Amino acid sequence: MPQVVIVGGGFAGVEAAKALGKAPAQVTLIDRTNHHLFQPLLYQVAAATLSVDDIASPIRQLFQNQKNTRVLMAEVTGIDSVEQRVFMGGQSIPYDYLILASGAQKTYFGNDHWAKVAPGLKTVEDAINIRNQILLAFEQAEVCADPQECQERLTFVLVGGGPTGVELAGTIAEMARLTIDTEFDAIDPTTLRIILVQSGPRILPMFAETLSAEAQKQLENLGVEVLLDSRVKEVDDTGVWISVSHPDSSMADQRIACRNVFWTAGVQASPAGKWLEVETDRAGRVKVNPDLSVPGLPNVFAVGDTAAMESGGKPVPGLAQGAMQSGRYAARVVAAKLTGKPVPAPFVYNDLGSMATIGRTFAVMEVGTLKWSGLPAKLAWLAVHIAVLNQLENQLSVLLQWAWTYMTKERGARIITTPVATPDALLPRLQMESSK
Amino acid sequence: MPQVVIVGGGFAGVEAAKALGKAPAQVTLIDRTNHHLFQPLLYQVAAATLSVDDIASPIRQLFQNQKNTRVLMAEVTGIDSVEQRVFMGGQSIPYDYLILASGAQKTYFGNDHWAKVAPGLKTVEDAINIRNQILLAFEQAEVCADPQECQERLTFVLVGGGPTGVELAGTIAEMARLTIDTEFDAIDPTTLRIILVQSGPRILPMFAETLSAEAQKQLENLGVEVLLDSRVKEVDDTGVWISVSHPDSSMADQRIACRNVFWTAGVQASPAGKWLEVETDRAGRVKVNPDLSVPGLPNVFAVGDTAAMESGGKPVPGLAQGAMQSGRYAARVVAAKLTGKPVPAPFVYNDLGSMATIGRTFAVMEVGTLKWSGLPAKLAWLAVHIAVLNQLENQLSVLLQWAWTYMTKERGARIITTPVATPDALLPRLQMESSK
Repeated sequence: MPQVVIVGGGFAGVEAAKALGKAPAQVTLIDRTNHHLFQPLLYQVAAATLSVDDIASPIRQLFQNQKNTRVLMAEVTGIDSVEQRVFMGGQSIPYDYLILASGAQKTYFGNDHWAKVAPGLKTVEDAINIRNQILLAFEQAEVCADPQECQERLTFVLVGGGPTGVELAGTIAEMARLTIDTEFDAIDPTTLRIILVQSGPRILPMFAETLSAEAQKQLENLGVEVLLDSRVKEVDDTGVWISVSHPDSSMADQRIACRNVFWTAGVQASPAGKWLEVETDRAGRVKVNPDLSVPGLPNVFAVGDTAAMESGGKPVPGLAQGAMQSGRYAARVVAAKLTGKPVPAPFVYNDLGSMATIGRTFAVMEVGTLKWSGLPAKLAWLAVHIAVLNQLENQLSVLLQWAWTYMTKERGARIITTPVATPDALLPRLQMESSK
Repeated sequence: MPQVVIVGGGFAGVEAAKALGKAPAQVTLIDRTNHHLFQPLLYQVAAATLSVDDIASPIRQLFQNQKNTRVLMAEVTGIDSVEQRVFMGGQSIPYDYLILASGAQKTYFGNDHWAKVAPGLKTVEDAINIRNQILLAFEQAEVCADPQECQERLTFVLVGGGPTGVELAGTIAEMARLTIDTEFDAIDPTTLRIILVQSGPRILPMFAETLSAEAQKQLENLGVEVLLDSRVKEVDDTGVWISVSHPDSSMADQRIACRNVFWTAGVQASPAGKWLEVETDRAGRVKVNPDLSVPGLPNVFAVGDTAAMESGGKPVPGLAQGAMQSGRYAARVVAAKLTGKPVPAPFVYNDLGSMATIGRTFAVMEVGTLKWSGLPAKLAWLAVHIAVLNQLENQLSVLLQWAWTYMTKERGARIITTPVATPDALLPRLQMESSK
């Protein structure tokens, strides 16, 4: 039985494996985690609206009824494209066809030491980490005596004006104002600052300019400060240095004192290109043929964020829909080769449009020439996201959470799962109160 | 304004604070976490049925509308009962009345080095830890070549035959058989062993003997081996030594090779007795007067698992209902003193009965002379647990999860949130397969 190995259980890998469900081959799907993650909603876990379990499904469960497919939880460490084997540490399995869907990870553009003080948002652990940090920031501000420290704890800098940064900024802003008003006694609401730093001249650059502007206005209505044409030059424990990157500007660098920096600015493809020793683009994505095979390796395919795909001469954006379409396409090519049928025509990306949501009632949406914003776009956003969620249970649970959050403005997932910070550092303000 | 400080946000502390909602005092509730945990369902988080967020609520949220109450997330480190101050690290706050509801923690009876290899189940972090370990055990068994190691990974030893151990054993057994049958290819189902080790002559000793026997039979139907009159003598990375503790037995010690040992055997009160330097019982619980005040300290009360409470000459069991009742009672005493009203009659424990559930359709229940088992008891168990869950949102979400799990036999929370284990150790079986 021919062996088809798929590396990665994200949108591209899962769709590829599903599309090979009836192929005459043994399909092996390898992922370093045990779950498929609905990445577009990850920011809602970070912002304590949804639970991890709402947006992640065990990969094994997705394929429990697909007889020709097995799932391995293991970390791929290399590929031998001559012997046709995939390595996981000292072990390996053979392949006849290989689909690389190992995705992308965050990059700090050479400043890896920022990772510790400016966590990213790509994995389940990232989201839990950010959630713990946001929730702890408020708890610590509540008991902190030094006004400067208090200000730093309640200042959130989000680096990156793409959908993740924008959606996270909006939802932190909503959560922060609501919980400070209703649940905290000592925090001064005016100390809260949420700052979105975007290197380019507008946020959400993949949308039409009008929608970018509307989204920015909506963020500003929620109290988010948007810094355009701005780049992060340095990050440390208590702040970030920002320089204005617009060529006409003569503004000096500014420092923002803060203890919460979240990084959504850059992604770098997984090391698939290095494993294969093939040509990649600047972001590490493997250059591919029109049939998504890797040049010189006709039985190896790169899809989703791992590949520098083109369609109609234009790059395919790194969105869930591109990942899913390319995964399914590569599977169709493999299935055709397995059965001796004609290989399908080159990959064509079908742009289904883009959406991003800001807060409870606003979204922007662009489908072809159609541009929506506000509540209609938000309703469309809801419909699409619920429809794409993989499992019926998750759909119901997420709907319930959203309905609850919408009606009560409460968050369902505000549980801090790390130990409390050192009390010594934590409680000066209390003593002041108690000595009144 | 008089200061009432409550230490601990479990059942006792939260009920005490709620009962003081209208008292003429500033109430401060201190907990080291930000959440109130519905402990009786914690085993369902460990067994991947429920999410953490389903059974935990931010304490701050519970009291958002209670004007005289503030919530602090901090760790209490000591008490000065002369100066009447509660210390949190180097900081302190004063009290006029103090209610100690700091609960209990697990104890290894002097063998603290077992904690690393035999995790307990008291906190949210514990439950996530056990869940990760259970789910990883199956993933690792799926890819492991050495039959001995495979057997060890699929052997689960649960120490302690109380409700937590029994309920955890039942639910691991159900989950294991179902997922092995439907989702794993390489695991031999007959290698799965779940062993419940109980030091006494029967499990669930707080129930009538007939119910203990029925519960044991039910566990055995699910494939759980129950070892009675057995004590753990040593635990290490790859197994436990068990000795039969029945005085008439001459059985030699036996070693069970296993990599999963979960500890639900012993609890030890929090260090409240040490903070106060007062008399405690063997489990570290503070001895209290009939009004739950601490002898010699009429304005300090100990409640819940922190106190060695008696009612009608009998010890009050360490259950949620005892904690809630004692918390409310101590609050009534404090409120009476604050307002100069007559102090209520001594604390009387109102035994509402006990229940424990094993698997999807079975429970045991004892209320006064009423003894139920099977489906009727399970339905009563469901009703009671849903009714007591603190928040409407949690009720709906938990009901949804339970209904889903019941109908589909799937689990909603099977996401591993730790990185994958070293691939080198993980994959020998794969190589064997691939060299066939």
